[in-house]
Amino acid sequence: MSTFGNHFRVTTYGESHCLSVGCIVDGVPPGMALTEDDIQPQMTRRRPGQSAITTPRNEKDRVEIQSGTEFGITLGTPIGIKVMNENQRKQDYGNKTMDLYPRPSHADWTYLEKYGVKASSGGGRSSARETIGRVAAGAIAEKYLREAFGVEIVAFTSSIGNEFLFPPTPEHPTSATNPAFLQLIETIDRKTVDEFLPVRTPNEEVSKRMEKLVGDFKEREDSIGGTVTCVIRNCPSGLGEPCFDKLEATLAHAMLSIPATKGFDIGSGFGGCQVPGSIHNDPFIKAPAIPAGETGTSSSVPRPRLTTKTNNSGGIQGGITNGAPIYFTVAFKPPATIGQAQTTATYDQEEGVLEAKGRHDPCVVPRAIPIVEAMAALVIIDAVMAQKAREASRSLLPPLKGVVPVHKA
Amino acid sequence: MSTFGNHFRVTTYGESHCLSVGCIVDGVPPGMALTEDDIQPQMTRRRPGQSAITTPRNEKDRVEIQSGTEFGITLGTPIGIKVMNENQRKQDYGNKTMDLYPRPSHADWTYLEKYGVKASSGGGRSSARETIGRVAAGAIAEKYLREAFGVEIVAFTSSIGNEFLFPPTPEHPTSATNPAFLQLIETIDRKTVDEFLPVRTPNEEVSKRMEKLVGDFKEREDSIGGTVTCVIRNCPSGLGEPCFDKLEATLAHAMLSIPATKGFDIGSGFGGCQVPGSIHNDPFIKAPAIPAGETGTSSSVPRPRLTTKTNNSGGIQGGITNGAPIYFTVAFKPPATIGQAQTTATYDQEEGVLEAKGRHDPCVVPRAIPIVEAMAALVIIDAVMAQKAREASRSLLPPLKGVVPVHKA
Amino acid sequence: MSTFGNHFRVTTYGESHCLSVGCIVDGVPPGMALTEDDIQPQMTRRRPGQSAITTPRNEKDRVEIQSGTEFGITLGTPIGIKVMNENQRKQDYGNKTMDLYPRPSHADWTYLEKYGVKASSGGGRSSARETIGRVAAGAIAEKYLREAFGVEIVAFTSSIGNEFLFPPTPEHPTSATNPAFLQLIETIDRKTVDEFLPVRTPNEEVSKRMEKLVGDFKEREDSIGGTVTCVIRNCPSGLGEPCFDKLEATLAHAMLSIPATKGFDIGSGFGGCQVPGSIHNDPFIKAPAIPAGETGTSSSVPRPRLTTKTNNSGGIQGGITNGAPIYFTVAFKPPATIGQAQTTATYDQEEGVLEAKGRHDPCVVPRAIPIVEAMAALVIIDAVMAQKAREASRSLLPPLKGVVPVHKA
Amino acid sequence: MSTFGNHFRVTTYGESHCLSVGCIVDGVPPGMALTEDDIQPQMTRRRPGQSAITTPRNEKDRVEIQSGTEFGITLGTPIGIKVMNENQRKQDYGNKTMDLYPRPSHADWTYLEKYGVKASSGGGRSSARETIGRVAAGAIAEKYLREAFGVEIVAFTSSIGNEFLFPPTPEHPTSATNPAFLQLIETIDRKTVDEFLPVRTPNEEVSKRMEKLVGDFKEREDSIGGTVTCVIRNCPSGLGEPCFDKLEATLAHAMLSIPATKGFDIGSGFGGCQVPGSIHNDPFIKAPAIPAGETGTSSSVPRPRLTTKTNNSGGIQGGITNGAPIYFTVAFKPPATIGQAQTTATYDQEEGVLEAKGRHDPCVVPRAIPIVEAMAALVIIDAVMAQKAREASRSLLPPLKGVVPVHKA
Repeated sequence: MSTFGNHFRVTTYGESHCLSVGCIVDGVPPGMALTEDDIQPQMTRRRPGQSAITTPRNEKDRVEIQSGTEFGITLGTPIGIKVMNENQRKQDYGNKTMDLYPRPSHADWTYLEKYGVKASSGGGRSSARETIGRVAAGAIAEKYLREAFGVEIVAFTSSIGNEFLFPPTPEHPTSATNPAFLQLIETIDRKTVDEFLPVRTPNEEVSKRMEKLVGDFKEREDSIGGTVTCVIRNCPSGLGEPCFDKLEATLAHAMLSIPATKGFDIGSGFGGCQVPGSIHNDPFIKAPAIPAGETGTSSSVPRPRLTTKTNNSGGIQGGITNGAPIYFTVAFKPPATIGQAQTTATYDQEEGVLEAKGRHDPCVVPRAIPIVEAMAALVIIDAVMAQKAREASRSLLPPLKGVVPVHKA
Repeated sequence: MSTFGNHFRVTTYGESHCLSVGCIVDGVPPGMALTEDDIQPQMTRRRPGQSAITTPRNEKDRVEIQSGTEFGITLGTPIGIKVMNENQRKQDYGNKTMDLYPRPSHADWTYLEKYGVKASSGGGRSSARETIGRVAAGAIAEKYLREAFGVEIVAFTSSIGNEFLFPPTPEHPTSATNPAFLQLIETIDRKTVDEFLPVRTPNEEVSKRMEKLVGDFKEREDSIGGTVTCVIRNCPSGLGEPCFDKLEATLAHAMLSIPATKGFDIGSGFGGCQVPGSIHNDPFIKAPAIPAGETGTSSSVPRPRLTTKTNNSGGIQGGITNGAPIYFTVAFKPPATIGQAQTTATYDQEEGVLEAKGRHDPCVVPRAIPIVEAMAALVIIDAVMAQKAREASRSLLPPLKGVVPVHKA
Repeated sequence: MSTFGNHFRVTTYGESHCLSVGCIVDGVPPGMALTEDDIQPQMTRRRPGQSAITTPRNEKDRVEIQSGTEFGITLGTPIGIKVMNENQRKQDYGNKTMDLYPRPSHADWTYLEKYGVKASSGGGRSSARETIGRVAAGAIAEKYLREAFGVEIVAFTSSIGNEFLFPPTPEHPTSATNPAFLQLIETIDRKTVDEFLPVRTPNEEVSKRMEKLVGDFKEREDSIGGTVTCVIRNCPSGLGEPCFDKLEATLAHAMLSIPATKGFDIGSGFGGCQVPGSIHNDPFIKAPAIPAGETGTSSSVPRPRLTTKTNNSGGIQGGITNGAPIYFTVAFKPPATIGQAQTTATYDQEEGVLEAKGRHDPCVVPRAIPIVEAMAALVIIDAVMAQKAREASRSLLPPLKGVVPVHKA
Repeated sequence: MSTFGNHFRVTTYGESHCLSVGCIVDGVPPGMALTEDDIQPQMTRRRPGQSAITTPRNEKDRVEIQSGTEFGITLGTPIGIKVMNENQRKQDYGNKTMDLYPRPSHADWTYLEKYGVKASSGGGRSSARETIGRVAAGAIAEKYLREAFGVEIVAFTSSIGNEFLFPPTPEHPTSATNPAFLQLIETIDRKTVDEFLPVRTPNEEVSKRMEKLVGDFKEREDSIGGTVTCVIRNCPSGLGEPCFDKLEATLAHAMLSIPATKGFDIGSGFGGCQVPGSIHNDPFIKAPAIPAGETGTSSSVPRPRLTTKTNNSGGIQGGITNGAPIYFTVAFKPPATIGQAQTTATYDQEEGVLEAKGRHDPCVVPRAIPIVEAMAALVIIDAVMAQKAREASRSLLPPLKGVVPVHKA
């Protein structure tokens, strides 16, 4: 369905060519400062046309808060968010090609199979415009997490085609065991990532190779995929709801719900399957003291007494966060819309040649970054609220002998 | 939480050492033949001790249906399922090592952080015994899917450590483009998979290499991970609920909720990021006529009029099934319990050496296969019922001009 | 939360004085004709200012569909609905009285206790404007139910103060046993109800007495409550999901979620407690043949073979519809806003006198009618889709000996 | 479905004649002392055979905790609960009468309409045995609420047939305005209620009249209904989730899900419709200081600064608790099983006479009391956890100027 989350619950609406797109965000903690200015930056980061290698269509995407705040403060009631569609091309319906052919590896055919109605936009709800509501809701979640815990969520491009920021090697089949990678995710921030536009991979040399690769695909009217790696720092321990809603499970759900995704891995991931347990296990060590005021804005948030020496677990063990950085990687396929002619079949089972017109994005990976960050924020805030309900409920019980005291909620 | 699914809803209970484990399965279609005999086989396939390379503990795991059937027929009411625990080792509590140390990369520490209570089994709910309820519920789902649509779900080991059934190559960075792989997933069945016990990889040579690899790790008291690939055949088109519950998203959720998983990919997956769009796109072709009585048991289930020539999409486009085989791969980390001594910290932040006693599983991959199949079945049946609600509701509306007729529900 | 329903899922947003109010309706069956014209009539029926006895504020409440339809046909994707607020009186904040006093029996105090934020509108989300989204969503549900099954939902005023349409008597402690009542609910329609504006009780004499009563309360700057009775005809049998989501339970939930409600009864209700079981039981009789084309628009909807001679059950037995008319009554308290001065306490615990200014509604009962109808439609459509998922899923199973065939979905 | 609650989530299983009945309770706060002894008393109170006027069948209903506790302490994991059925009368199937006739006003017919399967017990899931899981789960919820807040939940019989504990009068059309009633609900406890067995109405004279009335109905082989009133004291303010999950809405849902219920009213209820707003409004007054240690066990639970002088609201305003006692009344119909012969129709539409054999309960009201209490506890604990998630989340935000501080979570 179009709803995500149980406590911080986002419901989105909108197709490619309708009047507006947007969402309702229910469960936002009351008493938080919030205006459109908190939301617009991520909205702008996801806009096409930020550089030569993304699509030059000039969307505006101005966010309008409809409800749920007053005088710039959240009321605790649902926040309605609306972004006008300036591209309502319903007149395009009747377009010959779109009319005849379901586009290969698009959603045109499966939407028709599912709903039995042929929309002018094909699988209109599968379009990138649908992600606007996610990014808006994610920005609200992020603001809360930053204010409450100092959570930092940063995503970057980790590969395009066969160009990798950290190519797998026999020594490091997973970047999880690579010290350079671990150092990067400790420190990377969005400003740095955006310095590497258009590809958003934080390494000058790799960035150039990727840019060139994308340019080549653009020239050939072809497309190429890639991966986004995302790190979440300063996340409290204890998040994730076993057994079915382990944190990696809800993260995977969130990521694979983003259009064009094909894979997810957490911590050591697929590469970790090749690492012996004796190396893969993360030994515990005493957590370092945190210099006053350094982590998080809220001094009342306790940090775990132990941490791990390595982090092949990606900050999650048994489905529950341990306080270490959470990191994961999401695979994006090559965009289905390409300029080259494709031999395929019409809705009526006739073979023919489909040629797409217009300007296309040869690689969606850089634009996907704020969407990955948004979905990560939605997963974390929902897990925070579930755990806060438990901790706060528990804290009201009389203490029991031999039971370790719970965090203060 | 401990509930999975919206229409076919499974709720599980049980830790390692409690009285019994089990589940309640709500929403089972009424009027289906069902006895313990339909459930026991998969339960037995997940049992440890099936061969030298899995753990020799001898669990019995006899399924008992408590409710929801009468005279071997489902009533439509919740099916209660119980499996006794024969290993209620509560007296083990007080074990010195377990008492002092959270085991590295286990859930002991995070369960304590989350719940504030130290269970005798550490993160007892994170144990493999928790999966018993899943497998039981999955067997019920599978029976329905087989009877209604002829759905076949088959998983097999696709890699252990660096031994791959289909190693990635420059030509085939993903097995999705490899004809040998595509042919395998069209035909593989469980009987064949089980002929390759203990590793369950359907290739004699690779199987031997894997068996040797696991034996080596066992000898070194170490452990190793691997991947399970699963195919779902004869799945109806139109399944999956955009935008947040795309079928790959709910599959990813389901798979990453299995203990010890670290990654998921669907169709071309991570390797597909390296394939140009012009090759990755799946052109449509006219669907072949199905020989009478060949696919599925229910002749009333229509098949789509189109299919795809290639299947890099993995049977899902825009989050919705297109009728082609669905296939995906799940990464399992090396088991955290190893015989080697590990330097780590106690709950009280003291460094020390932890030595695990007893017999351990050097590789969980082969045992994970029925669990992957079970979770796949739970995802598919839930999506089927969501889509059936839509199709059946729609079919009652008066026909509209220019709208393609929906499937008959 | 602000979401209602599992299959046909409505999420609303909006307070009294924000930019707009509205909702997202997810799960609408695709392929249904739908424009604003299908929604506006009920929206207009709920507007204040329809007569002397309701509040004269002139709201406009024009519905705008944002998404989910194309060329007047539902796509199956979420329908975004927006109604502008023309009364954004944020400048009123600072109003002395509202600033100092939580209004007695309003939500000002409890909203502050819950959210910790004082909104300019007090408990803004508890305002009648919140019901706009419900009525819009209900109108969509109703259209479906009418087209698919010929369902008719009609509510009317059954009492105001101590004036009753069917006063309880020793012989008929519940109107369920009163033939005049049973006949009325078989035939009453909205047009007839609206002929009895302003009070909407379908009886000339009673209507006049009620109108006079309300006028008296208006004059005294006081207020009075009353009850709304609602009937749902042509509802298919088999709706309602035991054990927790029995149809009367979800109806009760829906009705008690309407602002100002204090009670709900179904069928014989509270009065039925005084009727002996031997009279209260509804004997079964053979269902009469339905003249071709008379009930419902969809000839494919089967009717049950049995019906009941009496209908004390109110069309629901064991939580499941039996095909007979469903009827229930909802109690509305006297509006909390009255012109009279009230001695009460300030937020700061000081006793004082609160005098409300402006024009107030002495009785909300007549305006509540379309809201009751809307919520009834939302309950029924959700139950229909749950049951259709079951029936359609079951219909694909091979037939079993000795099991009664299910409805064709 | 068979699941109730979002945070404290109960899933039940079991029909009349299956192997066992029970439930899984997910979301129980960890670290609470809990054994079967906490659950058994309410289980015993709901047992039939407690006196001459309830059914003499001798059920045992011994609770067995399967999981989720260790050494008598909750782990935070799901609690599995099982109660054996000692009455597995499947051999009764084939009973001539039950085979031929759907029993009037039972669920036999509607279960068949819904599920298409004829169970030996008719609508077996609609039986009173289904409530065992509710009562067990409710006892766990109650223990938490008592320990955390000193919550007291007490239900009693308020009418049987036309014998009322507080008969409506012109002066008091609702008992809400009756000082004697208000005093009773401030002080009544379960021990006192049980002193008035078999009818459980806390008034000697009325109790006798009711007992005689029930005896008369028993003699005539007839049955009679009645009402249960329930009070919840010491409930924290701020509970209830507008707009659809107002506390009265979830209470109504819970109560109408109990078998044989026909109505619900909260606070002044239906009678309150006849009270002028000027009397019905509850003026605010300064809350009295609470003598140290008197209310609740947890001194950290703050009480609201204001309370209301009267309590027509029943402790809920705008769907949110205000800290005053919550009270409501539930209507139970006369039991459908009566000894008298009934003319009705067979499944095959033939008219005939049905005579029930065996011993029947002429009035279920006294036995329903622990079930009403259990469902009330489930509603309150779920609302507590939702609100604790909000409060605790909010408490981590930096303070904002002009915003009232939230409760400490």
